[in-house]
Amino acid sequence: MIIIGEKINTSIKSVQSAVEAMDAKAVQDIATKQVEAGADYIDVNCGTFPFKEPELLEWLVNTVQEVVDVPLCIDSPNPKALVFALKANKNGKPLINSITGERERYNSILPLVLEYDTSIIALCMDDDGMPETADDRVKIADRLVESMTKEGVKLEDIYLDPMVRPLGTGSHYGVVAIQTIKKIMEEFPGVHTTCGLSNISFGLPARKLINQAFLISAIGAGLDSAILDPLDKKIMSFVYAAELLHGKDDFCLNYLTAFREGKLEV
Amino acid sequence: MIIIGEKINTSIKSVQSAVEAMDAKAVQDIATKQVEAGADYIDVNCGTFPFKEPELLEWLVNTVQEVVDVPLCIDSPNPKALVFALKANKNGKPLINSITGERERYNSILPLVLEYDTSIIALCMDDDGMPETADDRVKIADRLVESMTKEGVKLEDIYLDPMVRPLGTGSHYGVVAIQTIKKIMEEFPGVHTTCGLSNISFGLPARKLINQAFLISAIGAGLDSAILDPLDKKIMSFVYAAELLHGKDDFCLNYLTAFREGKLEV
Repeated sequence: MIIIGEKINTSIKSVQSAVEAMDAKAVQDIATKQVEAGADYIDVNCGTFPFKEPELLEWLVNTVQEVVDVPLCIDSPNPKALVFALKANKNGKPLINSITGERERYNSILPLVLEYDTSIIALCMDDDGMPETADDRVKIADRLVESMTKEGVKLEDIYLDPMVRPLGTGSHYGVVAIQTIKKIMEEFPGVHTTCGLSNISFGLPARKLINQAFLISAIGAGLDSAILDPLDKKIMSFVYAAELLHGKDDFCLNYLTAFREGKLEV
Repeated sequence: MIIIGEKINTSIKSVQSAVEAMDAKAVQDIATKQVEAGADYIDVNCGTFPFKEPELLEWLVNTVQEVVDVPLCIDSPNPKALVFALKANKNGKPLINSITGERERYNSILPLVLEYDTSIIALCMDDDGMPETADDRVKIADRLVESMTKEGVKLEDIYLDPMVRPLGTGSHYGVVAIQTIKKIMEEFPGVHTTCGLSNISFGLPARKLINQAFLISAIGAGLDSAILDPLDKKIMSFVYAAELLHGKDDFCLNYLTAFREGKLEV
């Protein structure tokens, strides 16, 4: 499982304050802790500062890579901010979060993927808006995969996001998300799937239960990456348990190691 | 989800003592609490008393049905004990736990299913021992369903148990269990699937994590009944969350009701 640590995001109040004050130590602390807890990528997002996003995103990249070696997930739809961040990047191949099938966004972001040789999260949506069914999503995925690979993006650098919609707006959207992941992993061998966990439970109470259940079943459907809080010991425990349950942990080795290292929370 | 409350089982020490002392109040208390927590059946098992199982099972049936109205799940492979219990039963159609494809067990238990018009849990195993693959299990399920329905058992009275083997003895057994449930529900529309949760995690640490992950993914595969502890608020919370996630809770109604009634534990 490829874990993308989501915590350096200015939509979180304390992070908003830290970034506003350019408090490097606070940001670095979150980065270090996420890597220690198992993050494979550190997401950086300062989208709540639209007028100084390029400079702040560049600062976040520089600040984070002073203390950790894992690659960064550069999280912005703003090409100018992405360029600032990509120029500053030194931590190996970054992941851009994200492209979509929307013509304008696609055309402004794909050149950066190619120029800076990055991996890319691609959301299954296009100019027709949010897709309704799993098949609608897979069709968009198909077009995205075909056009990006034709331009030279490798399959293994593509992370497809199924575009999860909240269960509160349609109680079939859990099945839709899980079917989308399953179909993508069957139809495009070599690509990754990823997504955040919290959209599924938006507007409902006791959200963690739903997020945990979604993670577990999505791993069963083939999800091989997730954007989550690696400092949430319970969700990380379920990553280990779900991988074991779904036959992705030979001889229970990762699960037993996680237990011995005190990483499992019952 | 059809919940079979597992707590009146003399393999649990406190229940062993209560049954030994024929402490009706203690047993009734467990029965009442399980029904209040959502049990659709109350399982009764006193298999640790092989020499007085018939009398004690009869006593358990009488004791439990004095205080609750839900049907009983009469849990014994011993035909004599089953007859004592079935004669005492007054709480509507009981569920016998369990028959298998083993010739001797099949031949001794099927007549009771027919004579007393019961539902029946059928384990996917036969005289060849524990099956290895999902297909092996579905073959046994096929023979069991065919021969029982030919004798007059209705499809909706059959609860197939996939015979879960521990992940600790083979890290593919989670996938096998989930595939078995999925295939049974696809191939025999109308039957139920059920199983206990704990076998999957036997011998491993932090078992609850694995049991919870298994329940959630099994519900996704179609499991529509489980033998579990309804007093375990967390596992019941995951029943609600998993049914919601897997499209079995229109308009999130059951989930929201459970939340309002304080039944969800995050």
